[in-house]
Amino acid sequence: MQLGMVGLGKMGGNMAARLRDKGHDVVGFDFNPEQRDVASLAELVERLEAPRTVWLMVPAGEPTAEAIEQLSTLLAAGDLIIEGGNSHYVDDRRRADSLKQAGISYIDAGVSGGVWGRENGYGIMVGGSVEDVECAKPIFDALVPDSGGGFVHAGGVGAGHFVKMVHNGIEYGMMQAFAEGYELMAASDIVDDVPGTFDSWREGTVVRSWLLDLLVRALEEDPGLDDLRGYAQDSGEGRWTVQAAVDHAVPAPVISAALFARFASRQEDSPAMKVIAALRNQFGGHAVTKTTDDPVRTPRS
Amino acid sequence: MQLGMVGLGKMGGNMAARLRDKGHDVVGFDFNPEQRDVASLAELVERLEAPRTVWLMVPAGEPTAEAIEQLSTLLAAGDLIIEGGNSHYVDDRRRADSLKQAGISYIDAGVSGGVWGRENGYGIMVGGSVEDVECAKPIFDALVPDSGGGFVHAGGVGAGHFVKMVHNGIEYGMMQAFAEGYELMAASDIVDDVPGTFDSWREGTVVRSWLLDLLVRALEEDPGLDDLRGYAQDSGEGRWTVQAAVDHAVPAPVISAALFARFASRQEDSPAMKVIAALRNQFGGHAVTKTTDDPVRTPRS
Amino acid sequence: MQLGMVGLGKMGGNMAARLRDKGHDVVGFDFNPEQRDVASLAELVERLEAPRTVWLMVPAGEPTAEAIEQLSTLLAAGDLIIEGGNSHYVDDRRRADSLKQAGISYIDAGVSGGVWGRENGYGIMVGGSVEDVECAKPIFDALVPDSGGGFVHAGGVGAGHFVKMVHNGIEYGMMQAFAEGYELMAASDIVDDVPGTFDSWREGTVVRSWLLDLLVRALEEDPGLDDLRGYAQDSGEGRWTVQAAVDHAVPAPVISAALFARFASRQEDSPAMKVIAALRNQFGGHAVTKTTDDPVRTPRS
Amino acid sequence: MQLGMVGLGKMGGNMAARLRDKGHDVVGFDFNPEQRDVASLAELVERLEAPRTVWLMVPAGEPTAEAIEQLSTLLAAGDLIIEGGNSHYVDDRRRADSLKQAGISYIDAGVSGGVWGRENGYGIMVGGSVEDVECAKPIFDALVPDSGGGFVHAGGVGAGHFVKMVHNGIEYGMMQAFAEGYELMAASDIVDDVPGTFDSWREGTVVRSWLLDLLVRALEEDPGLDDLRGYAQDSGEGRWTVQAAVDHAVPAPVISAALFARFASRQEDSPAMKVIAALRNQFGGHAVTKTTDDPVRTPRS
Repeated sequence: MQLGMVGLGKMGGNMAARLRDKGHDVVGFDFNPEQRDVASLAELVERLEAPRTVWLMVPAGEPTAEAIEQLSTLLAAGDLIIEGGNSHYVDDRRRADSLKQAGISYIDAGVSGGVWGRENGYGIMVGGSVEDVECAKPIFDALVPDSGGGFVHAGGVGAGHFVKMVHNGIEYGMMQAFAEGYELMAASDIVDDVPGTFDSWREGTVVRSWLLDLLVRALEEDPGLDDLRGYAQDSGEGRWTVQAAVDHAVPAPVISAALFARFASRQEDSPAMKVIAALRNQFGGHAVTKTTDDPVRTPRS
Repeated sequence: MQLGMVGLGKMGGNMAARLRDKGHDVVGFDFNPEQRDVASLAELVERLEAPRTVWLMVPAGEPTAEAIEQLSTLLAAGDLIIEGGNSHYVDDRRRADSLKQAGISYIDAGVSGGVWGRENGYGIMVGGSVEDVECAKPIFDALVPDSGGGFVHAGGVGAGHFVKMVHNGIEYGMMQAFAEGYELMAASDIVDDVPGTFDSWREGTVVRSWLLDLLVRALEEDPGLDDLRGYAQDSGEGRWTVQAAVDHAVPAPVISAALFARFASRQEDSPAMKVIAALRNQFGGHAVTKTTDDPVRTPRS
Repeated sequence: MQLGMVGLGKMGGNMAARLRDKGHDVVGFDFNPEQRDVASLAELVERLEAPRTVWLMVPAGEPTAEAIEQLSTLLAAGDLIIEGGNSHYVDDRRRADSLKQAGISYIDAGVSGGVWGRENGYGIMVGGSVEDVECAKPIFDALVPDSGGGFVHAGGVGAGHFVKMVHNGIEYGMMQAFAEGYELMAASDIVDDVPGTFDSWREGTVVRSWLLDLLVRALEEDPGLDDLRGYAQDSGEGRWTVQAAVDHAVPAPVISAALFARFASRQEDSPAMKVIAALRNQFGGHAVTKTTDDPVRTPRS
Repeated sequence: MQLGMVGLGKMGGNMAARLRDKGHDVVGFDFNPEQRDVASLAELVERLEAPRTVWLMVPAGEPTAEAIEQLSTLLAAGDLIIEGGNSHYVDDRRRADSLKQAGISYIDAGVSGGVWGRENGYGIMVGGSVEDVECAKPIFDALVPDSGGGFVHAGGVGAGHFVKMVHNGIEYGMMQAFAEGYELMAASDIVDDVPGTFDSWREGTVVRSWLLDLLVRALEEDPGLDDLRGYAQDSGEGRWTVQAAVDHAVPAPVISAALFARFASRQEDSPAMKVIAALRNQFGGHAVTKTTDDPVRTPRS
């Protein structure tokens, strides 16, 4: 079927390519003029036959909001927007309500798979009405792995991004579990072969997983991870997961601990730990480390 | 090769069967008379040709300690004990030092794979000398998956159980990550198909893993997990992982949170939360729930 | 000075009494007809001389929002609303902007001290303009402890409730620290006198604090806390603190852990721990506890 | 009464001085020759009249173990050792059993109060037999605050150090709670007066405490804590508390989180977070920070 793809970066570009490989007619637009098929959103809409389907794959926040704002004036009743970026599920619901007034349908689609998706297929989780999801089914079928798995219609509008958010929260916890295990083995003087240990776990064990495969790859390239700094970004979904857990009174100690570890990794110095140092100094006369001292931290790995 | 197997329960029995399938000569002993080939450890030792190899697969703690104690008097210099249970790595080191005096070798082997191991093979992580590990290699080769993966010689004595311990600690964190994600989706009113969502994640996503496969199986059998109580045992390795992390000054917030969640799940009532209730009552006059009140907790799922 | 007090419950009623004790002219309104001086907000406004000051001490959320909505039409330019309830700081800022259009000033005041405040005085943390805070200073002076401490003008509108929110988040962490220590001592077989231990800590130790005093009181009344259930509510500020920490990328492992412990305490059964039980059953054939089993949890305290 | 004091450092020296101020006859020994009354443990024992009481206030671990070893040969039946350092409660029990064979009594005494103790008195928590504690009561009475509070006989041998250990674990949690609150206020753009806010909390609030008083003092000296690095040691008791909690299956999420935050504060770089960065790079092509890059962390406070 015919699809407009807005956003042809690392994700959108690969997805467009996979869709074309599978025989779909993709008209692509990007603000970067080099790769696009059309020069504007207006031209994109013109090029598509009604009823149109437009997939958004642009950065979350302002860029997505602006693209939807513009499309809301360019599209017509009966058209469909699929928001494939990392929107918050509450924003999805608000937007869908607003577009509905103009007769424009809205599906939120969480997409997983990263740079491996073009080859392996993507995990696709969608929220929206049964009718709208049915209309876009050929697109979803082309994006998911060839096995036909990897797709869920999780619920009404917002459900796709909600479960993608939870997926990412779980991912944070799993990654941190591997990370803690790595650090403990590296810190002990008892394990001679940390990369080999992870490699052995790829078969027959309880922790075998794609993340483990990736960790083994990373350790093959750099066995002590010496080239990397322990500095980890977070992408938003981890934060939203913790906030949703708090909103729903759901205990989330592991996902929140994983998120906080990332926050801490990005701090040059920790204001909280300055307080601990200050208090220890106050009550115990414990030595403190002044900012004018020579560097005091000793490398751990 | 010939092997004595002590302990023919769920794990040892399946392992013996897999070894026999692969052509090894296994002489089995169990304190349960029904399944054993020999009636005593003494008879087991007699039946094996020197130099003997005896694999222990009995419950951790006293039973393992006693079996090693007995074997230390029955075996001779040049023989080898492989401790395949869940011993603490510090105990391994102590035992190996002690057995060395009698010329008896010791390998500690962490075994992963559970009830699936007989068919799929086991993950095997061993600690010991290069020579001892070389001697027992045919056994390890038969136990691991047919692919030949799933084995690591992680270091000297203790290293096998150390990395198995860390494996289980990681497992705790991964399981808790899935568990928190499940609860959040179940608690929201936005996700209509929680089992289908987990199923979709089996392909193309970052969280795909054997634990996810198992969770999907469990949800197929009981979509709301209505037949289960939220009551989780812990098997020792999770505790040891946290204690080793503390000993090595390694932050382990995720693994410890997963462990504490299990502890809490087994409490009929929480003494700690009684303190919170008492304090809230003291400073704020907040209503408290007395033990004589009608049940006050409302089901969550 | 003259003050209208809206909400004469446990907090507002005591505060009105303390203000009158200190010589202020308080006109009180409550939706409960028994205690009020005037029968409506309209009558309250009539009774006050311009420029009027009205202190709101009603439940957070809808009741506060409605009272402000009504007052916004009844009050005149130059009047001042002090919101002393537990509003979210973002709501304060929005309301202040809106009221400003009508020339009505707004101060947000966080109040601490609970039922002890009438006698001991209250901790008061306010946000607002320097001028507005100056106008209301006699009221604040009367509410704080006689020592004159216990007051801070923390910043612009919202800052009062922000720091009160953080105060409560800290309170959650402190309470949980005492709670964990209590449970550990109670669980050990080594401490014969848990209440006496807490009592001894009230002098000369690092943990001496008002919360400790309260815990000692609670243990005097019920040494084993046998009359209480381990069931703890949370009042909103704890949740907001965690969410604000996430918004600001501030690691808050202790405050979030304390919050999650309260969430868990209110669950009849934990969906998350059902997942753990289900997974353990899947991979290890571990026994699980069915909901049809006899009660399995053994009392801990 | 007469007392031998072994260890005249920051703690022991102040305690000896307080005891002398209260009229006790203290014979002091230290390995540092400048301050001591006697030149050896042997001379100390000679100078004391039987039955002797010797208080140990030397660093935990080897120094304490060696001092007890030496005293066990110098002291006689009927004498009493009070171990006032930070021994582990399990070591106390072992030592007491061993000394008992020679008729030497043993009391373990946890001491709180830091450098403020000489003036304010110390919190003293002891474990031992009723008779032994009775004998040493005059010493305890002189050390505690003049009010007479601050003392508990918590149980048999080991109980004193057990409750002191728990005290310190609670202290870790309380400090971290304040630290997180500080960081959140400092990170927000809404609080203009963070030191003033803490100061205001000293009266009328739920969080008023000695630690708050100390934090206010620290902020008076250095309002932004600019002179300090966020680098916090841990003294052993925090680790033991977490390990004891794990041993007793007691959930301790707050105390463990506080401990792990200290561990992390001392790392130049985090091996665990390198794993997170490596995994993010593997699955998402996310940019990573190489160790050869310019410093990337931006100051937070």
